[in-house]
Amino acid sequence: MNRLKIFFVLLGFLIVIPSEIVSAQQATWIWYPGDYDIWLGNIVQNRRTERGTFFPPFWKMDSHYVLVEFSKKIELATPETITIKVEGQYNVKLDGKFLPGSPEKIVIPAGKHSLNIKVYNQAGVPAIFVRGETIYSDNSWKVTFEDKEWIDESGKASDTSTGTVFMNAASWNFNSPDNPPSQFKLAKMPMPYISKEPKKKGMLYDFGKETFGFVNFHGLKGKGTLAVYYGESPEEALSVDYCETFDRLPIENAIAGDFTVSGSKAFRYIYVEKDHLLSYDSVSMLYEYLPVNYKGSFNSNDERINKIWDVSAYTLHLNTREFFIDGIKRDRWMWSGDAYQSYLMNYYLFFDSPSVSRTAFSLRGKDPVTSHINTIMDYTFYWFIGIYDYYQYTGDKNLIEQLYPKMKSLMDFCLSRRNSEGMMQGLAGDWVFIDWADFKMSKAGEVSFEQLLFCRSLETMELCAKIMDDTENEKIYAQLAADLRSKLLSVFWSESHNAFIHNRENGIAGSQVTPYTNMFAILFNYLDDEKTKAVKENVLLNPDALKITTPYMRFYELEALCALGEQNYVLKEIRDYWGSMLDLGATSFWEKYNPEETYPDLLAMYGRPFGKSLCHAWGASPVYLLGKYFLGIKPVEPGYQSYIVEPCLGDLQWMEGDVPTPDGSIHIYCSTKEINIKSDTGTGTLRFKSLSKPVCKTATIKNTGGNLYELSIIKGQEVTVKYTNVKY
Amino acid sequence: MNRLKIFFVLLGFLIVIPSEIVSAQQATWIWYPGDYDIWLGNIVQNRRTERGTFFPPFWKMDSHYVLVEFSKKIELATPETITIKVEGQYNVKLDGKFLPGSPEKIVIPAGKHSLNIKVYNQAGVPAIFVRGETIYSDNSWKVTFEDKEWIDESGKASDTSTGTVFMNAASWNFNSPDNPPSQFKLAKMPMPYISKEPKKKGMLYDFGKETFGFVNFHGLKGKGTLAVYYGESPEEALSVDYCETFDRLPIENAIAGDFTVSGSKAFRYIYVEKDHLLSYDSVSMLYEYLPVNYKGSFNSNDERINKIWDVSAYTLHLNTREFFIDGIKRDRWMWSGDAYQSYLMNYYLFFDSPSVSRTAFSLRGKDPVTSHINTIMDYTFYWFIGIYDYYQYTGDKNLIEQLYPKMKSLMDFCLSRRNSEGMMQGLAGDWVFIDWADFKMSKAGEVSFEQLLFCRSLETMELCAKIMDDTENEKIYAQLAADLRSKLLSVFWSESHNAFIHNRENGIAGSQVTPYTNMFAILFNYLDDEKTKAVKENVLLNPDALKITTPYMRFYELEALCALGEQNYVLKEIRDYWGSMLDLGATSFWEKYNPEETYPDLLAMYGRPFGKSLCHAWGASPVYLLGKYFLGIKPVEPGYQSYIVEPCLGDLQWMEGDVPTPDGSIHIYCSTKEINIKSDTGTGTLRFKSLSKPVCKTATIKNTGGNLYELSIIKGQEVTVKYTNVKY
Repeated sequence: MNRLKIFFVLLGFLIVIPSEIVSAQQATWIWYPGDYDIWLGNIVQNRRTERGTFFPPFWKMDSHYVLVEFSKKIELATPETITIKVEGQYNVKLDGKFLPGSPEKIVIPAGKHSLNIKVYNQAGVPAIFVRGETIYSDNSWKVTFEDKEWIDESGKASDTSTGTVFMNAASWNFNSPDNPPSQFKLAKMPMPYISKEPKKKGMLYDFGKETFGFVNFHGLKGKGTLAVYYGESPEEALSVDYCETFDRLPIENAIAGDFTVSGSKAFRYIYVEKDHLLSYDSVSMLYEYLPVNYKGSFNSNDERINKIWDVSAYTLHLNTREFFIDGIKRDRWMWSGDAYQSYLMNYYLFFDSPSVSRTAFSLRGKDPVTSHINTIMDYTFYWFIGIYDYYQYTGDKNLIEQLYPKMKSLMDFCLSRRNSEGMMQGLAGDWVFIDWADFKMSKAGEVSFEQLLFCRSLETMELCAKIMDDTENEKIYAQLAADLRSKLLSVFWSESHNAFIHNRENGIAGSQVTPYTNMFAILFNYLDDEKTKAVKENVLLNPDALKITTPYMRFYELEALCALGEQNYVLKEIRDYWGSMLDLGATSFWEKYNPEETYPDLLAMYGRPFGKSLCHAWGASPVYLLGKYFLGIKPVEPGYQSYIVEPCLGDLQWMEGDVPTPDGSIHIYCSTKEINIKSDTGTGTLRFKSLSKPVCKTATIKNTGGNLYELSIIKGQEVTVKYTNVKY
Repeated sequence: MNRLKIFFVLLGFLIVIPSEIVSAQQATWIWYPGDYDIWLGNIVQNRRTERGTFFPPFWKMDSHYVLVEFSKKIELATPETITIKVEGQYNVKLDGKFLPGSPEKIVIPAGKHSLNIKVYNQAGVPAIFVRGETIYSDNSWKVTFEDKEWIDESGKASDTSTGTVFMNAASWNFNSPDNPPSQFKLAKMPMPYISKEPKKKGMLYDFGKETFGFVNFHGLKGKGTLAVYYGESPEEALSVDYCETFDRLPIENAIAGDFTVSGSKAFRYIYVEKDHLLSYDSVSMLYEYLPVNYKGSFNSNDERINKIWDVSAYTLHLNTREFFIDGIKRDRWMWSGDAYQSYLMNYYLFFDSPSVSRTAFSLRGKDPVTSHINTIMDYTFYWFIGIYDYYQYTGDKNLIEQLYPKMKSLMDFCLSRRNSEGMMQGLAGDWVFIDWADFKMSKAGEVSFEQLLFCRSLETMELCAKIMDDTENEKIYAQLAADLRSKLLSVFWSESHNAFIHNRENGIAGSQVTPYTNMFAILFNYLDDEKTKAVKENVLLNPDALKITTPYMRFYELEALCALGEQNYVLKEIRDYWGSMLDLGATSFWEKYNPEETYPDLLAMYGRPFGKSLCHAWGASPVYLLGKYFLGIKPVEPGYQSYIVEPCLGDLQWMEGDVPTPDGSIHIYCSTKEINIKSDTGTGTLRFKSLSKPVCKTATIKNTGGNLYELSIIKGQEVTVKYTNVKY
């Protein structure tokens, strides 16, 4: 049992980890790509309530295709019986001819055949599950939402080989005919409270840490109103007038029985008030979660850092549900900028690619594009960039093939909104977000940060066009990206500030320097050494620079510093910033934290005393930073076909951990004297500095200059290097 | 009781006509424009079965917006209580602030307010019904599918006054809170069979005429399979192996009871076979219909013509249901070309504008446009042209305002598919239909008929752009239309044939002359007198010209002849063509009829012995022709603000009838000696020829040259003219 599991056991439960891997030869429920994600996204995002009132998103929500045809060309040596399960009304065609009714079992003769199943479902997603000896529904099936197969007056069927657009079917992990996608539920597990205390007119229960689920009353009896006030803090739960969520339930139970509140909520505390004619024996909760594997791990000599990693992992897990959501108390929605960070953290913790795919599909919705994703310009760009990273980490071209048409139409939307300078600025209905900052910043005119993300989005399109063999568009996107990259420097780089300026309005360059463009330019490798150094000194490490007060942007700020080799500094920042939240009692990380604020005022946000989310996915970045820049493992070629390991202890004495990949994981132990690596995948390069001549018994170490060394890591072969750590 | 009603009574029932008119001050259920039509269209078009197998359409089916915001600015002198009914999960905001929960009744204080109701509904259409003293839900409410109203970290709500696209809400006739749109059902009425006869192993029932509904078994008892085979002809019902629709129902009734078959079907005959352990007392049916008013009427001295009008009216009514469908046996779908004719006939019978609007919205679906309407190029064009006519007959700008964005995007789709000559030809996935013809015709290359419809579609866009004050696009469409109109003549008019040729392939003009382009050019007024005369002689009245064998295209052929003053000829054609169907036992008019075919072979189509529909909307054109070209009434300005009455008896002795308008109807009686007119609307011009000097006691008659006379018709003032008819 590793430390992480112990941590969960200490907190009262153990994650049960089911296998999620779909065997290649296994039948699974399939549907039109994106449809299930959009449909499920609608359910999830329309579950939010604020003080008992339904609180839906403010952007367009799309729907699945209600009529979908599934088809497969098959060739059988011997006749085969297949069973067919369908969500929706359907027909089956074999070799272009209807079979009678809606058959659940058919025999297909030996030979070559076309099998078509056409499904209508308005309320849910058209989906099928087919299983025979050699025939089974999987992603190799073709799907279309308009088969265009008509029959002329002579009875001749039209030719659908041209003009009909087929896609590969999509699936998740519904691998049993009796487990159809419409019935999906997150897992549940009972959990007790850890203490209770009479307060005001009721009882305050503490579940020991931030959690998510359904409150259970045992032995509930009588008639009257049962009120449950939820709090991420005791103050919030006790504030019947201002807590963000509550349930006021009319009860009429003649005989004592169990009662589970119907909507799951985020809380650590609940405050229960009941009418005097009501009674119950006890309270518990059903923890609701997505069963994902904790594939990544981190451990070190520094217990504070370990705790920060653990709480980050827990924070990310709470927000990794049907989709990557922003926060569990609110908004419980998918926000593209937030989700983008969850993707990156996910690659260092769960490596659960389906969660990335579900979220990307659901965020994108359907054409036509009528506004930016979540209405936010920057969030459109993060959506693109997330696909770039997805490919880099997973090597999975399938998602790109499925999404490419929608990537193009979203990029067309962006391109159609450029100004005469070829840049994007907020038009009517656009929200230019960037960050919740405590300083004033303009969102008007050409904001340099938006151009930078736009540029990276164009690079993503270039990459994906290449993957899709779309040479013509690859060239176009490449040119657009190159033009914008050069404009970024010519328009926004200020020689006087020696940094990027924030924006330009009506042709006049502004004078404000904000951290955003500067730190992202480092991350995207857009700067030469001189400018990199300038950004580092003038912005990132300048004590007088504008301060970031969200974990959201601290993510990139600290990543940029790590990329510049400032791990020592970053470790200190992590200890201070995330550690301070722990000191203030955090059991999950927050939406926003300005160390100058004090408790309980820091609970406020959006003009509401408990408006702030205390469990926000973007608070979990240490999982990513520690994996990528301390354990130092990242892919070089897509899907870790090749990768680099560049461990950096900072001021740690030792650390060890796992970084997951598409095929198993990479384990590293690193102390000031020894590095030990074992990898399940690809070909790695260990790069490290040593004051002494390093020694490895099983591999050749190459000196690449000065005290820099490199070593190849072969899949399955453990290597141990004795060396002398250089403090960075 | 007029003759039409007597006709129905003779056939066994009386239509009950409810009032449909929505009072201006009445609350009604409202929704996002088009959404209900699309949703209901999905239900209707996915009800088709063929021999027990589900048979859905082959084009894209769209969905409603699942999340819709309804809003209204209000001003109250005194506080007002309103009740709110909603289909879906919802919240209510007053002046930007949530009200608790999902209130069903709220009190709004005196003063100015913003009321917002936001509704989520995945399975059905988000819809609301609001009623107070002065506040009520109607088409003046604003709706949007993305309100873009976000709240910043300080609690400030964003400005939605720019960048959010609002539309006016749509409604139909759901004027009671307890009659929500999701519960819509057509009306039902019991109807007996008129004869029965034991046949083969069962019993054949005859319901006396083509009908549509649910078969009822009374006193059904026992266990076994009950099989119902439906037939538009006795041959079809008795053909258990080839009838187009059937129900084979497993029954287990210990106690005798009534049993209604669940799906409604088209039939005149049913053949029932049952297992010997089953018994029943009797059979009847529930006729299922849309309650619409028969506002138009026609009567004359010619009983055969009267009968044809009656059967046409009944044919149209059977196909006027949730939408204008093509046929009641099959396809029971909306086909744009078929619907276009139903619209025109409707203006002379029911004048039920909501049926046009529902059909137009449902056919159009949502963006993006991925193929032609019904996948058929010509059907896309009819969709546009239908809107031109809709405006002319109804004067209703509202539908155009609601549809205009979707008209533009559909036209963009068309424009993007032009070839280098600016013409449209079938691309991959396009179906170029034109007609089910018994002669060979090419669908390849630039088909002149498609360019002609395209041109008229561009003219429709020009008109609608003008209505929408979209001056820029008005000019563009006008230019495109003018260019295409001139190309039509230069490319396709053949001096050697003195007619339009059918097509041009690879730059080479074909030599075939088909009727289509030629007759439509007359209808659209695209030809000068010389060319008009040429078309009339060389195509329309040429006995060697290619023969049309569908009522579908006979519609336009006869209309063109009427427009050329050939009413005598047309009357004879109507008597022959439609009359022959009656002689063959038709109780509704058919999908296709070639007088050379003989019974029962003529029942076959699409390679199936009973494939032909014997009740097809496009068979009902006499309703239109007799109203428009014999009674001679048509609008000159939109919505009959001004109109023309140009009666033409052909060889009739007398005729009389009503033509409905948006405000009441226009009644005309016309014999060879007297014309009598009374109108509820607008300003009319009676135009007639007389051999004698005509006399009118109440109005001034103007001689406009030769034996031509004109007279103004004033709303509400009956005029009688004594004259002497000129045989045309």
